[in-house]
Amino acid sequence: MSRKRGRLFVISGPSGTGKGTVCKELLKDIRNEFSVSMTTRAPREGEVHGREYYFVSRDEFLTNIEAGNFLEHATVFDNLYGTPKDMVISRLDRGYNVILDIDVQGGLQVKKAMPEAILIFILPPSLAELRKRLIGRGTEDAAKVEKRLGQALNEIRLIGEYDYYIVNEDIDEAVDLARSIIAAESARVPEAVRSIIREYEKESK
Amino acid sequence: MSRKRGRLFVISGPSGTGKGTVCKELLKDIRNEFSVSMTTRAPREGEVHGREYYFVSRDEFLTNIEAGNFLEHATVFDNLYGTPKDMVISRLDRGYNVILDIDVQGGLQVKKAMPEAILIFILPPSLAELRKRLIGRGTEDAAKVEKRLGQALNEIRLIGEYDYYIVNEDIDEAVDLARSIIAAESARVPEAVRSIIREYEKESK
Repeated sequence: MSRKRGRLFVISGPSGTGKGTVCKELLKDIRNEFSVSMTTRAPREGEVHGREYYFVSRDEFLTNIEAGNFLEHATVFDNLYGTPKDMVISRLDRGYNVILDIDVQGGLQVKKAMPEAILIFILPPSLAELRKRLIGRGTEDAAKVEKRLGQALNEIRLIGEYDYYIVNEDIDEAVDLARSIIAAESARVPEAVRSIIREYEKESK
Repeated sequence: MSRKRGRLFVISGPSGTGKGTVCKELLKDIRNEFSVSMTTRAPREGEVHGREYYFVSRDEFLTNIEAGNFLEHATVFDNLYGTPKDMVISRLDRGYNVILDIDVQGGLQVKKAMPEAILIFILPPSLAELRKRLIGRGTEDAAKVEKRLGQALNEIRLIGEYDYYIVNEDIDEAVDLARSIIAAESARVPEAVRSIIREYEKESK
């Protein structure tokens, strides 16, 4: 590996905050890549194994969990979903940043497995605005919207575990800020430089 | 103070790296401010007390050192120069970022006095390019250029103490990256959020 290693970014935020749009915009930069998840759910029409997901059996998925092959995994409606570690690492090694669009619980799992991961939290400008956006989608009734807001608050309570936050008031500004964070993190003095110097100083004492 | 507190950025780098230009560009953003230094040197024609420098007597300067009023200070050609702490803090409190254009030794003093300071190091693309730029200025003879290169290397050896580095190959890109670093740092989840949560978790155990 001669190329500079990429960085792993986790983007989380309650549903309705525009997290998906931010991620999609970031992927227009060829230095950023998504990671393809593994799932036990059946492929839908048009979905390709290795493109939308790696479609595997429940047994295969469980074997991967036991082998510690996931950065994070979760159950959604009886189906298992997970982020394969080796896929992420090989992309980082090839110099690409990896963008993971996952929920807060997943983000915390990733941080535990790879402490160098950079966690970004997308916030709505206000609870009232989030409610408005969720109602505006028209896909959920009032009770479900309130349930989503409760979930949002549970996620926001964990923001202290995140490195950065972006208040998505304007999507272009939010994307710009996400790009700035990625650029800045790529300009950090590498930990290796610090540890080499510390090592040298210890030796020369 | 109702406004969000600003952040303190130190920009250092060997002479010839374009550090001054980067700082000047950053100051075009009204959220960023310089800090006016204090000096014992005599004012030059056109210089205004409180604008270019605070011009003070040697005694007054020494009293300020003893009182711990400087974030950093240094002697250059028998004159004393220093960054007054209270000036920086009042700007930060009013919500401005403060940009300090100082050398590496000064940067390390600032970090010690205010550990929340963010240190950015400007690097030349190569030693050969730095030599070329120094010669190109035409203000120094060959021996002095080589002396400056030696000083540059002594500064670069301390890069492990810095948070970010910018390789100034193209000035516009270097300025963009500096702006990204400032934007990203302003999007960090505040330490206060973390400590409140830690406190709460301790109490609820």
